[in-house]
Amino acid sequence: MPDTLLPIPTTDHFSVVRLTRAWYVVALSSELGSKPLGRTLLGVPLVLFRDSEGQASALLDRCAHRNVPLTEGRVVGDRLECGYHGWQFDGGGACRKIPGLCADRSGEQPGQSVPCYATREQDGLIWVYGEADERPATEPYALPVVGEEGYTTVRRVVEVEASLHATLENALDVPHTAFLHRGLFRGSGVTNTIRAVVTRTRDSVQAEYLDEPRPTGVAARLLAPGGGTVTHFDRFLMPSIAQVEYRLGHSSHFLVTSCCTPVHDFRTRIHAVISFKLGLPGWLVRPILTPIAMQIFRQDARVLRLQSDAVRRFGGERFSSTEIDVLGQQIWRLLRREEKGHEVQDEDWRREIVLEV
Amino acid sequence: MPDTLLPIPTTDHFSVVRLTRAWYVVALSSELGSKPLGRTLLGVPLVLFRDSEGQASALLDRCAHRNVPLTEGRVVGDRLECGYHGWQFDGGGACRKIPGLCADRSGEQPGQSVPCYATREQDGLIWVYGEADERPATEPYALPVVGEEGYTTVRRVVEVEASLHATLENALDVPHTAFLHRGLFRGSGVTNTIRAVVTRTRDSVQAEYLDEPRPTGVAARLLAPGGGTVTHFDRFLMPSIAQVEYRLGHSSHFLVTSCCTPVHDFRTRIHAVISFKLGLPGWLVRPILTPIAMQIFRQDARVLRLQSDAVRRFGGERFSSTEIDVLGQQIWRLLRREEKGHEVQDEDWRREIVLEV
Amino acid sequence: MPDTLLPIPTTDHFSVVRLTRAWYVVALSSELGSKPLGRTLLGVPLVLFRDSEGQASALLDRCAHRNVPLTEGRVVGDRLECGYHGWQFDGGGACRKIPGLCADRSGEQPGQSVPCYATREQDGLIWVYGEADERPATEPYALPVVGEEGYTTVRRVVEVEASLHATLENALDVPHTAFLHRGLFRGSGVTNTIRAVVTRTRDSVQAEYLDEPRPTGVAARLLAPGGGTVTHFDRFLMPSIAQVEYRLGHSSHFLVTSCCTPVHDFRTRIHAVISFKLGLPGWLVRPILTPIAMQIFRQDARVLRLQSDAVRRFGGERFSSTEIDVLGQQIWRLLRREEKGHEVQDEDWRREIVLEV
Repeated sequence: MPDTLLPIPTTDHFSVVRLTRAWYVVALSSELGSKPLGRTLLGVPLVLFRDSEGQASALLDRCAHRNVPLTEGRVVGDRLECGYHGWQFDGGGACRKIPGLCADRSGEQPGQSVPCYATREQDGLIWVYGEADERPATEPYALPVVGEEGYTTVRRVVEVEASLHATLENALDVPHTAFLHRGLFRGSGVTNTIRAVVTRTRDSVQAEYLDEPRPTGVAARLLAPGGGTVTHFDRFLMPSIAQVEYRLGHSSHFLVTSCCTPVHDFRTRIHAVISFKLGLPGWLVRPILTPIAMQIFRQDARVLRLQSDAVRRFGGERFSSTEIDVLGQQIWRLLRREEKGHEVQDEDWRREIVLEV
Repeated sequence: MPDTLLPIPTTDHFSVVRLTRAWYVVALSSELGSKPLGRTLLGVPLVLFRDSEGQASALLDRCAHRNVPLTEGRVVGDRLECGYHGWQFDGGGACRKIPGLCADRSGEQPGQSVPCYATREQDGLIWVYGEADERPATEPYALPVVGEEGYTTVRRVVEVEASLHATLENALDVPHTAFLHRGLFRGSGVTNTIRAVVTRTRDSVQAEYLDEPRPTGVAARLLAPGGGTVTHFDRFLMPSIAQVEYRLGHSSHFLVTSCCTPVHDFRTRIHAVISFKLGLPGWLVRPILTPIAMQIFRQDARVLRLQSDAVRRFGGERFSSTEIDVLGQQIWRLLRREEKGHEVQDEDWRREIVLEV
Repeated sequence: MPDTLLPIPTTDHFSVVRLTRAWYVVALSSELGSKPLGRTLLGVPLVLFRDSEGQASALLDRCAHRNVPLTEGRVVGDRLECGYHGWQFDGGGACRKIPGLCADRSGEQPGQSVPCYATREQDGLIWVYGEADERPATEPYALPVVGEEGYTTVRRVVEVEASLHATLENALDVPHTAFLHRGLFRGSGVTNTIRAVVTRTRDSVQAEYLDEPRPTGVAARLLAPGGGTVTHFDRFLMPSIAQVEYRLGHSSHFLVTSCCTPVHDFRTRIHAVISFKLGLPGWLVRPILTPIAMQIFRQDARVLRLQSDAVRRFGGERFSSTEIDVLGQQIWRLLRREEKGHEVQDEDWRREIVLEV
């Protein structure tokens, strides 16, 4: 008896990639206090904690002794203590104390340490490197304009039931806005034919939309109350960042950097950092923009969950694309090439397309 | 370490069959309005919709673009529109519109259409053929007496957590009624020895119960208030119909046709069409008979679920049968033979048995 | 694509064993009345029932006819009757009645009986042998002091989401008490260095703690209100019993026998029989001791569930042990050796260790 009767059986999730040799945001700085904090990255349970000087560390969330999660323990000085038998580990994962044991423990015993993940804290974000016990060759991405004068910055965390690829594509996709977000962002019925220039480097791809009138919809009005032609960029930075940028002359600048973290194959945590400098004051824009942005997000989260459910139900994707799926295919290409460790040959690629928005 | 310690390991669900080249009822006509309707047939998610003239179609419930379920979209004229990017499909599954795309789309692109399932509507039922993109060689079963003068017809839909085979056997099984439905239908304590003649053709099997006094119990009294000897047939029509017929002379006729649809291996949707002409008027019988029938159904649904749970828990069936399991074994034989595509050699088989009821 | 990214993949649950040729407690005598009772042993669903003289039997919980669980039926005289078609089975599993069947049934038919499990009832416990249709070569363990003059006996049943091994180790582990049960049992901050003598036979292992002052904490005060040095034994009896014994001179004796039953690989049912003779009267100790014992149990149950979750999430255990994991490793060794049917060569092993408590 076959496992499935589905008419188009697919056997692989081609759009799911698992890149461990990369930095991912796992928490906002404000989320990690004096208690251990659990996070899952690429299916791996991690425990974050701060030592007595506030330095953040990330360990595998499993005590080396009897495998109880260390998130259930407590921080004692610079160490994380397991709640079952009280074994203590330092920020590097080394076992520093075994209560009750009288025998000599000079020198570390094999098997008593916990795998450790390189950790950085910057721009109000905690970044973790996805490979255990390895010194990364790179540093995390430094976010532009955060902290610069005149800019207001808002941070939001949301989780979606979707693969990293589907989440990134959705964040940078223009054509769906007129349908899924009808009335909130585009979709007024009036369409314009615009050009987009797509450029790709070895670790990024960007679409610049030319001649785009200010989009219709409530959200777009806030970005550019006076109308006019906007400069609009959608950017993907390997392997997990989706960045949307709007500029209107020198006065208005709006930048959303979504640091997307693959929790599991079909679950992604989005750490969105929204920085803006607009004609209107930040304290005025923020309370209006936030509920609209959250409504847009809920619509995206819902459709992404439906997509994931269908992909899992059918045992894989069966996507069909056209040229206006501007960035989705490029993102997939970059992610897969990295996963396979392929040599890079087709750099600095450039292409121009037209689409109606 | 073995996967299971169960004392009688079985490795196959021999009573589960998956016949795609057949018609199944997927909905009552009254269930499909102007919105898309989701149904699952043999594990395959389908979307049903009506075009502007009311004609029903069934497509695979997955947009060809990004695999979002089409049940989440809307009907626009004669087309079904996906809710994510607005792709539109006609009743045959062809893609007719891709919003935003400026490029020439004359001629259909491969991969942009959605698999389509032949659909018919008759007797107040919507039938779908289980194989995609295929023109069926047969037509759905036409229900007897529906719409004939003097008959009252009631339609009910219920779902059971059971295989198609277990559901069909239960619907046509006599011996369980005295135990499971004690007091409602048979089981008064007085038993009679009666004969049954079982006849089988290439695509049906029937048991005719001879010399049967009117059964005891509340439900049976309604069928034949004056008592007397009833003519009773239990019929299976390949691959999904269970039919029970009672006749008392020319005045009383009671016919239940259960169109059983395999949703999943262990979930079956029963579309029961009950037609009757009795000594009592239909408007009087109906409100009395319906709650009793639903009580009988709940008892059956419960035991079928328990049976399915046990079968799944043990990894397969381990049935033992006797000659009074009159139709169950014959149904299984017909279903399996069809699934295996075996040549038919033993047609027009006839057998007589006795049982106590 | 790999199935998991976990940094230390393990492919086997080395601490899970499945020993069927052994006696396990499946219920307290008081739990089995006149109705059939369902229990699961080593993943196998069983039905217990008493005949008209109160004799308990255990059968596989699956009717030989259509596989409906027999727990859903009823006891009729000395037989268990299935609720679907009324087949009746005796305490040995033989089918004694098939309602409706007129044909001669002299002599039992193959396939119509239900597997039977040897059953004993003693010390207020119902024991079942884990192998079907087999006459055990041994008898169940007879509990000490139950019913002896001067002793109070309390029975409690609790279930934990943990393997048999993890449950047994936890029940007999000393070092965790100061952390997990801080304040209730040990953990006051003052520690003592004590010796333990560990002795192993072919089917048991025992730790005797020497020179141990009365432990700190509320529970320990009740055991020995006057303080003093206690004699303390922790014992494992193959394959499922954990026994903790405290003696203080001749006047105080406290014995907890935990009969641990593997329901599934990661679910264990503990039938705890607590017998004590203390300086204080039983009616006074019992209402104070019971809530404290239940609080300790809830802390153990929680940590065991967390451990099981982690073990399953990581696909196996990765334990690291020291010499103060006194009994856990020995229990594992005895269980595994029995499972593999290895010859016994290293009997009557003895070892002395020191630990701080």
